[in-house]
Amino acid sequence: MPRQITAYSNPLVKHVRDLRDKRHRRESRQFLAEGLRILTEAHETGRIPRLLFFAAASAHHPLVERLIAAVEGAGGEAIETTPDILSKLSGKDNPQAVVGVFDEFATPLDTLDRSKAGIWLVAERLRDPGNLGTILRTGDAVGAGGLILIGDCVDPFSVEAVRASMGALFTVPVVRSDWDAFLAWLRTGPGTLVGLSLQTEHDYREPAYPAPTFLLTGNEAQGLPEDYEAACDLLVKLPMLGKADSLNAAVATAVMAYQVLASQRG
Amino acid sequence: MPRQITAYSNPLVKHVRDLRDKRHRRESRQFLAEGLRILTEAHETGRIPRLLFFAAASAHHPLVERLIAAVEGAGGEAIETTPDILSKLSGKDNPQAVVGVFDEFATPLDTLDRSKAGIWLVAERLRDPGNLGTILRTGDAVGAGGLILIGDCVDPFSVEAVRASMGALFTVPVVRSDWDAFLAWLRTGPGTLVGLSLQTEHDYREPAYPAPTFLLTGNEAQGLPEDYEAACDLLVKLPMLGKADSLNAAVATAVMAYQVLASQRG
Repeated sequence: MPRQITAYSNPLVKHVRDLRDKRHRRESRQFLAEGLRILTEAHETGRIPRLLFFAAASAHHPLVERLIAAVEGAGGEAIETTPDILSKLSGKDNPQAVVGVFDEFATPLDTLDRSKAGIWLVAERLRDPGNLGTILRTGDAVGAGGLILIGDCVDPFSVEAVRASMGALFTVPVVRSDWDAFLAWLRTGPGTLVGLSLQTEHDYREPAYPAPTFLLTGNEAQGLPEDYEAACDLLVKLPMLGKADSLNAAVATAVMAYQVLASQRG
Repeated sequence: MPRQITAYSNPLVKHVRDLRDKRHRRESRQFLAEGLRILTEAHETGRIPRLLFFAAASAHHPLVERLIAAVEGAGGEAIETTPDILSKLSGKDNPQAVVGVFDEFATPLDTLDRSKAGIWLVAERLRDPGNLGTILRTGDAVGAGGLILIGDCVDPFSVEAVRASMGALFTVPVVRSDWDAFLAWLRTGPGTLVGLSLQTEHDYREPAYPAPTFLLTGNEAQGLPEDYEAACDLLVKLPMLGKADSLNAAVATAVMAYQVLASQRG
């Protein structure tokens, strides 16, 4: 039987609100995900929140009922609360039906099976949580095996990244690694490392991209470091016909990922 | 000779800060753009700010000097201020070297020359300013003739949209229209209207996309209304191999735009 929390001063409410803060996430190793669609997707992949907040008005929605049962069955807690607290938890005027608190999870690099997918995404020093989430969402769409984050990337469990991923945080494995460890692992098996670069004459549509292809995206402002480019098997560029010399990082990754997909599907 | 403002309570500072607010933008018909790169790009396209704020430390940067001269030559005002005020104006911890206040501008639909570009972007009820700016940035990259906003779209002059556009707001014409007026205008000349849809079996890589192609992107949450899809010459879909049934709107637009570009370049 779910308990009710209606006081904003409740310590559990404070804990959940604090999960927007990186330090609090790091200490608690938990994160926030919102919305019936995303939480249902999480459930289907076997991720069940520790805490589930829901509004009384949606308590009898079949998907909410299923989530409540799953949370309680897994030893978590389902908590009925007010629309006002829900909207404060999610930081949105328009409150979601449900807000969930999940334990963070991690995929070690050496557990990846590169034969399982033709496309793998690799991003280095990604700064924008929206870009990270959007890249995950694209990764889900192209059937990518995972997203490998190199160096000091933004936290994939930040509220903005989770939101932009539209649930793909739960379906696309995320690995954190440093560059040397990644490169060493990559070279223990097959894999073409492809970098987007301004320092090349190769149009992105020319090459074939054999499976598995690892698509490397650089930092939003600076692109890839020179030695990272030197380590690539292939550098390609996208046509830039206007004034600017670069695309948004998530956009460039997506255009490339769909090209790789097309190349591999023949 | 630029005057100095060092008091946060100065009414001009308040006016500029209030430009983050939609109502204040609508009343004043002005908007905010930040950063040396974007303001220099604006200048090169002939857009000069009414007000230019710069930090004393960057007053002798050649690009800043050129901007100050341009602003004063056009009857605007250049104002030296503190890093603290600059960072409050831009709402960022890391202050930009310059912040400019521009008059809003508009491109009427019937002034567009569709023969000038092979790709035109059309978005309906776009809600996210980051998506709008990112679509403009992509439009610049693919040489799009313009972005036509249909119906109740987010404000292209919002700080987030301007920022995400990385200057493309100044290089890619933005038109606001309603659907009926757009469709009537479109049908007065050549033009293939292409919609991204889940209700079709046509893969996006099958068709040729003759110039001018008008790429129609729907609302982030709901996609295109049925009657909009019915008005399209062509509906296409992107492969979606994962759990999700859609991509981020700016990502989908970019993947399509690069496919149209490739099709037209042969």
